[in-house]
Amino acid sequence: MENLVEQFNDYRARMNERIMDSDNLIIKRLFNLDTNAYAAGHLNEATKEMLGLACSMVLRCDDCVKYHLGKCKELGVTTAQVQEVFSIATLVGGTIVIPHLRRAVEYWDALSQ
Amino acid sequence: MENLVEQFNDYRARMNERIMDSDNLIIKRLFNLDTNAYAAGHLNEATKEMLGLACSMVLRCDDCVKYHLGKCKELGVTTAQVQEVFSIATLVGGTIVIPHLRRAVEYWDALSQ
Amino acid sequence: MENLVEQFNDYRARMNERIMDSDNLIIKRLFNLDTNAYAAGHLNEATKEMLGLACSMVLRCDDCVKYHLGKCKELGVTTAQVQEVFSIATLVGGTIVIPHLRRAVEYWDALSQ
Amino acid sequence: MENLVEQFNDYRARMNERIMDSDNLIIKRLFNLDTNAYAAGHLNEATKEMLGLACSMVLRCDDCVKYHLGKCKELGVTTAQVQEVFSIATLVGGTIVIPHLRRAVEYWDALSQ
Amino acid sequence: MENLVEQFNDYRARMNERIMDSDNLIIKRLFNLDTNAYAAGHLNEATKEMLGLACSMVLRCDDCVKYHLGKCKELGVTTAQVQEVFSIATLVGGTIVIPHLRRAVEYWDALSQ
Amino acid sequence: MENLVEQFNDYRARMNERIMDSDNLIIKRLFNLDTNAYAAGHLNEATKEMLGLACSMVLRCDDCVKYHLGKCKELGVTTAQVQEVFSIATLVGGTIVIPHLRRAVEYWDALSQ
Repeated sequence: MENLVEQFNDYRARMNERIMDSDNLIIKRLFNLDTNAYAAGHLNEATKEMLGLACSMVLRCDDCVKYHLGKCKELGVTTAQVQEVFSIATLVGGTIVIPHLRRAVEYWDALSQ
Repeated sequence: MENLVEQFNDYRARMNERIMDSDNLIIKRLFNLDTNAYAAGHLNEATKEMLGLACSMVLRCDDCVKYHLGKCKELGVTTAQVQEVFSIATLVGGTIVIPHLRRAVEYWDALSQ
Repeated sequence: MENLVEQFNDYRARMNERIMDSDNLIIKRLFNLDTNAYAAGHLNEATKEMLGLACSMVLRCDDCVKYHLGKCKELGVTTAQVQEVFSIATLVGGTIVIPHLRRAVEYWDALSQ
Repeated sequence: MENLVEQFNDYRARMNERIMDSDNLIIKRLFNLDTNAYAAGHLNEATKEMLGLACSMVLRCDDCVKYHLGKCKELGVTTAQVQEVFSIATLVGGTIVIPHLRRAVEYWDALSQ
Repeated sequence: MENLVEQFNDYRARMNERIMDSDNLIIKRLFNLDTNAYAAGHLNEATKEMLGLACSMVLRCDDCVKYHLGKCKELGVTTAQVQEVFSIATLVGGTIVIPHLRRAVEYWDALSQ
Repeated sequence: MENLVEQFNDYRARMNERIMDSDNLIIKRLFNLDTNAYAAGHLNEATKEMLGLACSMVLRCDDCVKYHLGKCKELGVTTAQVQEVFSIATLVGGTIVIPHLRRAVEYWDALSQ
């Protein structure tokens, strides 16, 4: 199962590098803004990553969900806390979110092993 | 091709069990509500599953489409009726729905064998 | 409250006429397809309008919801049936649909007076 | 400007009452779940309301944004914190969120007077 | 009808100023990126504004549609060209886009007087 | 990598044929409209394909992105121009588009070999 995590991280790293190698200034700055937005400020990093996770779930982007789950794990967000983010996101976004919830739970399990 | 159906059902069943095993009361109740919402009432089950199918198509969730196609097949919805649901959903949701329509047609074919 | 219905119908009729007066063949054919898609076929008109209503709710388009509610009323869909469409759409689309549900209920009440 | 807040709350309260008066069990239970999901648990109420706010912004629902801004204000979330939620939501959701950001800022100002 | 244009521009200008006055660096940089992205480059300004217009229509954001229609008018995009953008956006996004098309046509008429 | 292109084209061709073989008149006409909408008119084909590409990115449909990238390549749209479409779409649609941008860049690379 750890495979799931490595596979995601490898593809993401490889393509991000490919994108940063290109001449696309707008995209580069957007990547840069992204890094800044999740840095600790008036809200701490864990809270910000949970915000990113919830947004990713309601917008139903599996890769974004995986990324923020990875960050949540690194920052020590607990399974019980992640479950509450899942609850709110699934309630706000509806049952259409459930297939993404399944994959999110699977990925969190892989991260937790 | 039947593989397509089994593969979907197996993963869905396994992860649903994993989710129901967790302590997440909100999600559990949401699953329960979901079961109730599609039970026969003032509208019959087939109509409700077609409503679920159409919603799933315009929201472009392949797994949800597969699930409701499976239920439609069980309930005896005909290919001609499913085609009319496809028409309305593709028209409402636009050509962006077409890749999902392709996979829906493939899955319905698999269910029909 | 009947005002709500007239206001919607008047603006819709006026702008549709304006659109049909223009030279836009693609849009005209799309309008034409739309009429055909909701005509009775292997599914009856009421079922098709309920499909349109459910899709409109999960995609959160108030004007589309109003239009299909109007058609449902004309076709004799009952309040109890409309309530079941509301349930499925709100469950599939999530609590984000609720503000649209409020306006849908208000509009259905206006139609029902 | 306080008008903006009262107007929103009045319509919301009136229509919620209308919805709760109806016989729609699914919707009633969904409302109930909604209340539970935002109650303090492993995450505190303020964090949960900020999650709801971020989800509402990326899904671009003005009424939902207003509701969660009202709750954030009640729970003592600061303007600096709300600004960071705005940043993440606008970044995740893109410039398409900006018109909703304008109305969110206007509403937060009204709440803050 | 010109009112429609002034009303949109006034609110937009007022709230953008309010946002730029705040301390939100992420949002400010995002506004800045937005200006850069639509500047002439390998594609000319008119093409870029039409891209913005099409994206705004399929994402169904009336204010964004109005903004890009205003820019298209300034840059000399013709009614026939705007109609073709409308066609593609309505076809891609589906009939759910039609209420936004109505308001777009009304706004373009106001800009054209 | 060319595999990526062939694989997409093969599945698309096979399922489109399957859909055209069925009796679904609405879908057939929608396919036909689609062909017409991207034909040269007051805007040239390349511009129209870039509009389709941008819409597909903000609506986050990988298959639609691939299709329009293929058409852009055929019509001689340059990498620098495609990059500007990517910029606008990612900015409008937000960082949630980035996973789709990764796959789009990978596909464009495959087309360019």
